[in-house]
Amino acid sequence: MRCEVIAIGNEVLCGQVVNTNAAYIAKALSTEGYWVQKQSVLPDSFAELKEGLETALATSDLVIASGGLGPTFDDITRKVAAEIFSSDFHFNEEVALDLKNRYKDKLLSLTNQATVPSKAKLLSNSVGTAPGLVFHEGNKILILLPGVPQEMVPMMKDQVVPYLRENAPPSEKIHHASVEILLLEENLVNPTLEKLIHDYPMLSFGIFPGYGNVKVCFSGSDEQKLFEAKQLFSEAFAPYIFSSPSGQIVEALQKIMVFKKKTLALAESCTGGRIASEITSLSGSSEYFLGSFVVYSNKLKEEILGVDPQIIAEYGAVSKETVAAMAKGVLNKTDADFAIAVSGIAGPLGGTPQKPVGTVYVAIAERGHPVNVGLLEMRGSRETIILATVRKSLAHLYRKLSQNITPFSP
Amino acid sequence: MRCEVIAIGNEVLCGQVVNTNAAYIAKALSTEGYWVQKQSVLPDSFAELKEGLETALATSDLVIASGGLGPTFDDITRKVAAEIFSSDFHFNEEVALDLKNRYKDKLLSLTNQATVPSKAKLLSNSVGTAPGLVFHEGNKILILLPGVPQEMVPMMKDQVVPYLRENAPPSEKIHHASVEILLLEENLVNPTLEKLIHDYPMLSFGIFPGYGNVKVCFSGSDEQKLFEAKQLFSEAFAPYIFSSPSGQIVEALQKIMVFKKKTLALAESCTGGRIASEITSLSGSSEYFLGSFVVYSNKLKEEILGVDPQIIAEYGAVSKETVAAMAKGVLNKTDADFAIAVSGIAGPLGGTPQKPVGTVYVAIAERGHPVNVGLLEMRGSRETIILATVRKSLAHLYRKLSQNITPFSP
Repeated sequence: MRCEVIAIGNEVLCGQVVNTNAAYIAKALSTEGYWVQKQSVLPDSFAELKEGLETALATSDLVIASGGLGPTFDDITRKVAAEIFSSDFHFNEEVALDLKNRYKDKLLSLTNQATVPSKAKLLSNSVGTAPGLVFHEGNKILILLPGVPQEMVPMMKDQVVPYLRENAPPSEKIHHASVEILLLEENLVNPTLEKLIHDYPMLSFGIFPGYGNVKVCFSGSDEQKLFEAKQLFSEAFAPYIFSSPSGQIVEALQKIMVFKKKTLALAESCTGGRIASEITSLSGSSEYFLGSFVVYSNKLKEEILGVDPQIIAEYGAVSKETVAAMAKGVLNKTDADFAIAVSGIAGPLGGTPQKPVGTVYVAIAERGHPVNVGLLEMRGSRETIILATVRKSLAHLYRKLSQNITPFSP
Repeated sequence: MRCEVIAIGNEVLCGQVVNTNAAYIAKALSTEGYWVQKQSVLPDSFAELKEGLETALATSDLVIASGGLGPTFDDITRKVAAEIFSSDFHFNEEVALDLKNRYKDKLLSLTNQATVPSKAKLLSNSVGTAPGLVFHEGNKILILLPGVPQEMVPMMKDQVVPYLRENAPPSEKIHHASVEILLLEENLVNPTLEKLIHDYPMLSFGIFPGYGNVKVCFSGSDEQKLFEAKQLFSEAFAPYIFSSPSGQIVEALQKIMVFKKKTLALAESCTGGRIASEITSLSGSSEYFLGSFVVYSNKLKEEILGVDPQIIAEYGAVSKETVAAMAKGVLNKTDADFAIAVSGIAGPLGGTPQKPVGTVYVAIAERGHPVNVGLLEMRGSRETIILATVRKSLAHLYRKLSQNITPFSP
């Protein structure tokens, strides 16, 4: 079954909004074993949108499009789809009642949102106002979802996936697996992978460098072969791999920290709270995470963490001495088992010939043990440097917990 | 000049990677006055990629594609483009020398990366290994960029944009403007906008709800009309608008905090460092931002910020009393002029009938003044609730600074 994922809206087309919907929908379809052969973004204009949807339906069996279902002037997706499927509209009492219950008389657009194409099956929207729509004629399916992610996501998960499982399961299920590799460059992974590609021609492979890690994906319909290839690959890179359902190192770390009943607190300077924010993006992080001292100013490093002003004066705020003192400060001020402390130059300003932008010191301390300090040297934008620091810091702590590898050892 | 933006790679197609490249490239083109008529994502397979690129070149004059230029097995973009433009390859000494200087003998794929299509102009890559390629024949331009964002972004900004300005400026420049609206729902903005759409038929409009704000975009070739429409709209929503080059509230806040010489420190519970992380994502934030106490555990709230354990015991960690005490604690522990403190239930677990998921208390305190506390009631995923809390907290502080509106006043 050939699938296409479409986002509708000039805001996506002109880059005002990042197309996270397509990634979410494509991932959900891939997980279910469908093959997504194309993604597109189409404008909010009647003729072009109609042509785009018709082309997609001609080359794909299942088309899922998000956007343009709301009540404002540029929301024309319903009208376009109704024209493609020659459907009239009717006022749906059930939708109207639900909207009335949730919005009282605050919804100016109730009549608009409750008027739906008669040929479409409706998907209820518990977060916003626009119901989703399923047009299913013969072996062609067009599913329309709201563009706002917080409305689209639950609708996709709770209604679209069950609908597809029941009414249009993939003829040959494609299985997927992936392995995440920590702290290794892409070009060191490639030779091993090329051998596997040669030995497993029935599978397809992908390799994706990220911020401080490399992701390798395997897919194919032969589940046994998929397992073998993944196993061989994992064995070859044993000290460097982790796996978690989301592919995030922070999820793997949470699992092992909770399992080992260890707690963590942080001191962040150049990452500015980003490590804490990644950690707490996961539900359940409070089981091991106590908190973070985002000490952006030197004064706070001294007053809150008790870093000796002498150390900062002598070695600078970006130094192995300062991050070690910050990490010790965290262990003094909290009862955490582990501390991570970070200080560096995220740029684009603030670099010097001795300490260029991308110079970041990280300390990892375990209560009762000597502090380990590493120097990360990175290139790229502020965002890149911050994100790579987050991933690499968490990766070093994860390797310590999971394999007792000393952080920053070669 | 019709433009299409393409991302190449199975990782994007199957949703493993969010397509941020397309947004960046499309935004850069829009800013230069080009009209992006389509975005697509194509697979790493020779025949489909070739067909996709040929179709794009048939319907658009300028096609910018990212991905598939690296040294690994799935990087076939160069070969496909060379075939489309009937180009042979040659080994480029200059590229080889640059790679040798930067990577010494660590680069296994030097010969691969220095072998480039003879008909293409090269774009240098200072971050990674693959040069970008420009094929320009007649009035058709195909530009190939690396897929890794930290390589693509500087190449686009420093080389592609200047190349286009010089060699293919847009025939009729499209101007863009946008206004961000704080703390107002989309459907309250729509009636005003519909009147403008009627009065300014030569312009196009877009309205995009975000996390706690609504963005309205205006575009058109008539700069004067664009100015008028934006001005009328801005006047209608004066107490609710802000503007900043990136469209981020955090950028507007930084500007006004620095201008008014005020400093800020935070206490974050449910946002887990996300407010600090948004603030410090901008260079120059250290001019007003001192730091954040990410006090995820109650113990840290008490020990670090001095919140009376009695208050947490009596009212709970998620209460107006606790956030007020946290904000006062921040002002006690630092010399900040302003403090924001946040505590709430981000979910998906932890909700109760009295305090369901999405219940978040925010306190904003100015030294020497009474603390203002607000209750935000939100719906959606953990990510949605955290992000909306970040934006709304910053928005209330921004309104206080810019217009002296008391935070959380109706």
